[in-house]
Amino acid sequence: MHQDRELTFATALASHHQEQQFTPDEHAHEYYQTSLLSAVMQGVYDGTVSIGQLLEHGDFGLGTFNALDGEMVVLDGIAYRLDGDGKASVASDSALTPYAAVINFEPTVSLSLDASINKGGFEGELDAMAEAKNLFYAVRFTGLIKHIKYRNVLRQERPYKPLLEVVKTQAEFELNDVKGTILGFRCPDYAVGIGVPGYHLHFISDDRTTGGHVLDYVLHRGQVEIDHTSSLHLELPETQDFSDANLSAGASADGILKAESN
Amino acid sequence: MHQDRELTFATALASHHQEQQFTPDEHAHEYYQTSLLSAVMQGVYDGTVSIGQLLEHGDFGLGTFNALDGEMVVLDGIAYRLDGDGKASVASDSALTPYAAVINFEPTVSLSLDASINKGGFEGELDAMAEAKNLFYAVRFTGLIKHIKYRNVLRQERPYKPLLEVVKTQAEFELNDVKGTILGFRCPDYAVGIGVPGYHLHFISDDRTTGGHVLDYVLHRGQVEIDHTSSLHLELPETQDFSDANLSAGASADGILKAESN
Repeated sequence: MHQDRELTFATALASHHQEQQFTPDEHAHEYYQTSLLSAVMQGVYDGTVSIGQLLEHGDFGLGTFNALDGEMVVLDGIAYRLDGDGKASVASDSALTPYAAVINFEPTVSLSLDASINKGGFEGELDAMAEAKNLFYAVRFTGLIKHIKYRNVLRQERPYKPLLEVVKTQAEFELNDVKGTILGFRCPDYAVGIGVPGYHLHFISDDRTTGGHVLDYVLHRGQVEIDHTSSLHLELPETQDFSDANLSAGASADGILKAESN
Repeated sequence: MHQDRELTFATALASHHQEQQFTPDEHAHEYYQTSLLSAVMQGVYDGTVSIGQLLEHGDFGLGTFNALDGEMVVLDGIAYRLDGDGKASVASDSALTPYAAVINFEPTVSLSLDASINKGGFEGELDAMAEAKNLFYAVRFTGLIKHIKYRNVLRQERPYKPLLEVVKTQAEFELNDVKGTILGFRCPDYAVGIGVPGYHLHFISDDRTTGGHVLDYVLHRGQVEIDHTSSLHLELPETQDFSDANLSAGASADGILKAESN
């Protein structure tokens, strides 16, 4: 039966796919990112952009906070901080971020998911419909989550250790049968170092009490919405730490996937 | 004596360096690029952005034209096409580009060069003063050029060959003691695939009759102006060719340097 239900999802995706419109829109609908993931990998954790500034560029997205003090979800124009205890709170406009990516979310695909599907199955279906594989996609699932495992980074002190060291002591959480939103981006493979190649997803519960960086999940039922863009804006930090970072070394796909998937 | 003169240049650079101001300015002063060099490497030569659109994003820069029909220089808000005969003409606003990079040039460093210096010496000096090595720099030399070697790509027909094949049949030109402008960008090493790591420079003569993609040069005397930015905008093509391109394969530093430096 599980197989049949996945096919239902795939069929729904296929039927909606033709409605996708590719139109150039430049700044109006761009993927806006502060810093580079390769810099975060190397321990560039000091924030340079405020949450207030970030929200001017998008109402949807994810990231982290100054000194890695929690994970970030931006949903419907509100930035949430997901702390080391797994707790969610609305972030202050003046809080700083060393790495975040946002977009004004304007989904061109919306469809119902009416059966359970795991991470591999779901992301495989999304891949199949991401026809323009060298563009950037934003994706949001809203509904009932059968199982979710997520982690939150913990506030770091100088001198900062690289991210691969930091995530060894991350706080991990698991929930079953929770209503919530999983959202984030699909970056093209060539964008390794800019972001996470493949899917980078964060979670927040419907009651906005908990959330974090998604490690694994099984979706039960809900709504899937997909947006895409061909416009990217990267705002690099003009700091000594960023300039000193060996960003080529921080851009290994292996290292990034290890830091973001475990 | 040559050594002494280089030191004069270096000293001038050093004394001006402190005047550099790093201020966040986002869209107002961003490095705006259409497509990715890795896509051009793979033969994605169909233009998607018009010269008119490009000039809205910058008055200074370089690139190429639809079907690789010549090299581009953008100088003081005018886009020039440098054709396979080495001849320069003002490009039509409606012409398309598959790859170009522009900025509104606002140099923060300006200094005099009063002695001969070759490519290696000049770019070495620029490197030494590019303190924020992970940002993007724009550079312009205006003056007397002792020797310059440049190439122009030739219009391609479908099916397009990769750039490494195309440049084997490029037109090459050499001039001595010519007044002109050499301009372009210094991209950080990590940006391989986005642009050319290191220096990517194009040339146009003072009388606007000739120019091309710079392969080698010896400067004699003139003015050097340098700008930098931490804001990048990438406008990716929403075309099948771009989507089909293997952009990871097109992003090898070796391949890019071979295509752009020989």
